[in-house]
Amino acid sequence: MKKAVVLLSGGLDSATVLAIAKSQGYECYCLSLDYHQRHVAELKAAERVANSLGAAAHRTAQLDLSMFGGSALTDNNIDVPEAPTDGIPVTYVPARNTIMLSLALAWAETLGAQDIFIGVNALDYSGYPDCRQEYVSAFQRMANLATKSAVEGKTITVHAPLIDMTKAEIIKCGHALNFDYGMTVSCYQADSEGRACGLCDSCRFRKEGFANAGLQDPTHYQSRV
Amino acid sequence: MKKAVVLLSGGLDSATVLAIAKSQGYECYCLSLDYHQRHVAELKAAERVANSLGAAAHRTAQLDLSMFGGSALTDNNIDVPEAPTDGIPVTYVPARNTIMLSLALAWAETLGAQDIFIGVNALDYSGYPDCRQEYVSAFQRMANLATKSAVEGKTITVHAPLIDMTKAEIIKCGHALNFDYGMTVSCYQADSEGRACGLCDSCRFRKEGFANAGLQDPTHYQSRV
Repeated sequence: MKKAVVLLSGGLDSATVLAIAKSQGYECYCLSLDYHQRHVAELKAAERVANSLGAAAHRTAQLDLSMFGGSALTDNNIDVPEAPTDGIPVTYVPARNTIMLSLALAWAETLGAQDIFIGVNALDYSGYPDCRQEYVSAFQRMANLATKSAVEGKTITVHAPLIDMTKAEIIKCGHALNFDYGMTVSCYQADSEGRACGLCDSCRFRKEGFANAGLQDPTHYQSRV
Repeated sequence: MKKAVVLLSGGLDSATVLAIAKSQGYECYCLSLDYHQRHVAELKAAERVANSLGAAAHRTAQLDLSMFGGSALTDNNIDVPEAPTDGIPVTYVPARNTIMLSLALAWAETLGAQDIFIGVNALDYSGYPDCRQEYVSAFQRMANLATKSAVEGKTITVHAPLIDMTKAEIIKCGHALNFDYGMTVSCYQADSEGRACGLCDSCRFRKEGFANAGLQDPTHYQSRV
């Protein structure tokens, strides 16, 4: 079996990607990042998802990105917006996907894996620059100049299977693979039980996705919603 | 003053880069990485160097790369070679420069800095792929697609001023800037006092560099040498 490193946040998108990678026959090594994010409940969700889908391994790297700040997800003094905002919202975390892909690259090299999966998508999303195909392609090109394995011929492919899918299409895809989205936590300000606010960007895209897919939303919401 | 993030390991090269960045008028924000490296003495050296050169700030990120292993610098079961080896040596750390540059990118964005300095060089070096100009250029290109700042026009330049210099040229450059290399630790297996083994690749390049530069080697060696 071919090994793949799958970045797993615990949210809807990366869980779907894991289900896709499994269905394509990869042995999946799941990597999560505890970056002192506000919505730490997503890390428990990642563990549930990895176990449920039979990942070969699941590791959580510890890296405190609050040392750099600059995001509502790592700085408790910046509120998570509960209505749409103009431009790239304050929930953007500087260089987060670059850092996570870099860690995936390190693990891929020591595993001898040539495939990395990431759940970015550029349709129903918040406009984060590191969720676009041109970014993913540039990362892959850089990665293939960065490592000993790559320069010795074992090149890396960064798979972003959701990149051109709407949220509804992503949900339908996971549904077709029998994945239970009730395990996932997307909310940027989920409580410690993983219950969602229902108001942030991430909740909004998720809610609309289930509605547009014509599927029941299994999200656990906070009572205030 | 323009702000720059300077990657500072505590070794000879990155210290020279900090001296260069300072001489070019940058306000320097130094970033080190405690990745559970064998030669942890280099982190104390980084602090000495940052203080001595008047860095605006110095931070050390904590990220345990021994979770991925695959290097003599993060796995105590792999010995540091004490003689030259063929190919890329086992002291190579998977994706290390990519991870460090990614962290520098995150900090640069929150600081509003558009310049990152890294002390890689591709002449008197161990053949690590992430020390070559084509790699640095590919990282910069990726970085300028990755961040909110970059897509809004504040692009990033990754400076690698040592890339085409020999070790002797690097040392002469630092010497011309009045930098005291006695503060730095290059050895891969330095003891807790920062004393060098004198035998590993890193010690060998450094020793030859001082000899070729015709300058006195201020390195503190272990008594076994």
